[in-house]
Amino acid sequence: MADPSTCAPLTRASVVEAHRIVAPHVHRTPVVTNRTLSEMASRPRTAEELRGTRWEGRRPAAPRMRLWFKCENMQRIGAFKVRGAFHAVEKLMREEGWLGGGGREKGVVTHSSGNHAQALALAARENGIKARIVMPDISIPQKIAATRGYGAEVIFSGSTSPEREAAAARVIAETGARLVPPYDHPDILLGQGTMGLELQEQVGEMLAAEKKQQHNDKGSRSGEEKTTTTTKSGSSSSSSSKTGLDAIITPCGGGGMLSGVALSCEGTGIRVFGAEPLFQGADDGKRGYESGRRVASVSTLTVADGLRTPVGEIPFSVIAGDRRLVSGMFSVTEAEILAAMRLVLERCKMVVEPSACVPLAAALFDEEFRAVVEREGGEEGWELGIVLSGGNVGVDAIGRMFGGGAK
Amino acid sequence: MADPSTCAPLTRASVVEAHRIVAPHVHRTPVVTNRTLSEMASRPRTAEELRGTRWEGRRPAAPRMRLWFKCENMQRIGAFKVRGAFHAVEKLMREEGWLGGGGREKGVVTHSSGNHAQALALAARENGIKARIVMPDISIPQKIAATRGYGAEVIFSGSTSPEREAAAARVIAETGARLVPPYDHPDILLGQGTMGLELQEQVGEMLAAEKKQQHNDKGSRSGEEKTTTTTKSGSSSSSSSKTGLDAIITPCGGGGMLSGVALSCEGTGIRVFGAEPLFQGADDGKRGYESGRRVASVSTLTVADGLRTPVGEIPFSVIAGDRRLVSGMFSVTEAEILAAMRLVLERCKMVVEPSACVPLAAALFDEEFRAVVEREGGEEGWELGIVLSGGNVGVDAIGRMFGGGAK
Repeated sequence: MADPSTCAPLTRASVVEAHRIVAPHVHRTPVVTNRTLSEMASRPRTAEELRGTRWEGRRPAAPRMRLWFKCENMQRIGAFKVRGAFHAVEKLMREEGWLGGGGREKGVVTHSSGNHAQALALAARENGIKARIVMPDISIPQKIAATRGYGAEVIFSGSTSPEREAAAARVIAETGARLVPPYDHPDILLGQGTMGLELQEQVGEMLAAEKKQQHNDKGSRSGEEKTTTTTKSGSSSSSSSKTGLDAIITPCGGGGMLSGVALSCEGTGIRVFGAEPLFQGADDGKRGYESGRRVASVSTLTVADGLRTPVGEIPFSVIAGDRRLVSGMFSVTEAEILAAMRLVLERCKMVVEPSACVPLAAALFDEEFRAVVEREGGEEGWELGIVLSGGNVGVDAIGRMFGGGAK
Repeated sequence: MADPSTCAPLTRASVVEAHRIVAPHVHRTPVVTNRTLSEMASRPRTAEELRGTRWEGRRPAAPRMRLWFKCENMQRIGAFKVRGAFHAVEKLMREEGWLGGGGREKGVVTHSSGNHAQALALAARENGIKARIVMPDISIPQKIAATRGYGAEVIFSGSTSPEREAAAARVIAETGARLVPPYDHPDILLGQGTMGLELQEQVGEMLAAEKKQQHNDKGSRSGEEKTTTTTKSGSSSSSSSKTGLDAIITPCGGGGMLSGVALSCEGTGIRVFGAEPLFQGADDGKRGYESGRRVASVSTLTVADGLRTPVGEIPFSVIAGDRRLVSGMFSVTEAEILAAMRLVLERCKMVVEPSACVPLAAALFDEEFRAVVEREGGEEGWELGIVLSGGNVGVDAIGRMFGGGAK
């Protein structure tokens, strides 16, 4: 893909331009609210609930928030990654000389066993471009089949990062293919950031519709006795004076999406937060953010398998650099991730992968984050955007995660 | 609830009137398409796939269909049952003398361990009416807790039908409560049928939007080379001349919803089909439909736990009576139900209960049904509405159903 130094600057305007490019190729995924989960998030946890956690003995935070879920689990290939992949491929096709120099046949390559593999395969296929995906030879058969299903050639390597990178380098040397990395590139950041723009717009539209509905209800119900004030929208019945989001919290793995969403909010007043697993040092982004120095390597087997990578250099410069576009990083335990996943499955009736549940886990369980919402949101509370980043989890895996339960 | 003989007639017009009554209280749930599942349904099964099934050796049917899923799993309480419950309660409140005679305090009662229990509890609570729910004492704790969570009083009984009915009769004798049965009553049928009206309208709107989009695309793309014709709607790329549905297939347990949907289609030309489990005689509706005599009792432990009941008398009269508003009944195996459920979870990223997957299983796997679609839909195929009736299944249960898998 394009030399980073020739890419568009990392600004909100560039995200807007990226959205113009990718919008014809990706779903404008729905945004949903859920009254039960918003109420849970707005109820202080009890001292009993905090016992045995890292917050034991502390005064429970009393935040108020309404949650707005951006459903990228319903995105093409089941995850937000298509946004960055389509953006990168479209930019490549516009690069002077690339198509004329046989770019379609030379193709693109990446090393990924996750959602980026399928995203790149799809973006390449829809543009008639050859795609080669380097995957560890221990990858599960479904992921290999899914990637091949999108028309990509799968090339196996060892499972360590150097082995995968070496295999990709060989492909590039032999074929002239262009590398499209999963997160550490401006075109990828800007593509993922398009989701932040949509979330802002959609919540604005939904809040405006809610106000209109409340206005109409007031008119038609005057003089009529109503036993209940429950609205059929499923959203909290408390009216809000807000016209848009106060904040967004997203998962953070390589940081491409978090930094892109942060760019999409620059200058809007919307605060952006990142959420990570804590397990086996997977909170590299938080540690790097707090120390000011990027943690370059991570080795973790957190259940949130999309978030096992360290934050990339370019994302880190956005998240924790001089502009400090991210207002805070939070980390949650494996049990908290699974508890949040259970709630999304059982209450929202949506299938999400564990990585997608990390921000909700922070909103429900992380007393540090909840104290921020209490302090800054006050009585009125926050309209909080929560990114459900993907839904690629098989029922077998769901069975393994929850099937051992006693109930 | 109201004496059946005083209820509105069983006609489409009555369903339209019921919709006016329940619409303020229920969600207009989304309708979604899924290209992968439509393509699967439109691909003839191979001889190999039919081996060992009841269709072995037969020429595989070659139907063409696009599937339109009505997502009642996203309905309030997670299932369509709120439609009938709200309708019955609203009608009761309009009954002369009921409110004035202390109806709110006397309340309503039903015997159900499933979605109807929660639906009636919610409808009663929102109208300030006391609800008592008779549940078998072996009901799982979550269902009891959920019903109580909606403010109902739970009364335990033995688990056989006579024991449950006797317990409800005692409640009625002691309190003056009115019985709201789960399916065998005109007000319930008419309420459930409102979902059929919405599905018809929504598919009409979506097909009109698709035509407009295709028209615009044609305009803007003239002269431009496009590698792909994939649309971002996720629907099949083949254009359709249709302006609405050809047919709807719904689950059939007690038959309240199937018969209500059939009424909602009367006179529209849309054909309506019912789908049942085959296991341990759970296909009582099909057997009754084919013999012309209702099967009055069933004892089955099919995984589709919402469909273990025999079809009620009033629903049966609509389904298989003189007007014969249902065009066919089909039954599927336990394995087919679970395969369909896996597809909805993994491909549509939606949580659905096993009962909700029975119609999709028929569309994908039942060669009898597929032959009907081939014969009647021809080259152009069918726009087929599929009712996803509910999503009330815990992750523990999903784990038990799929966790033992080898993959």
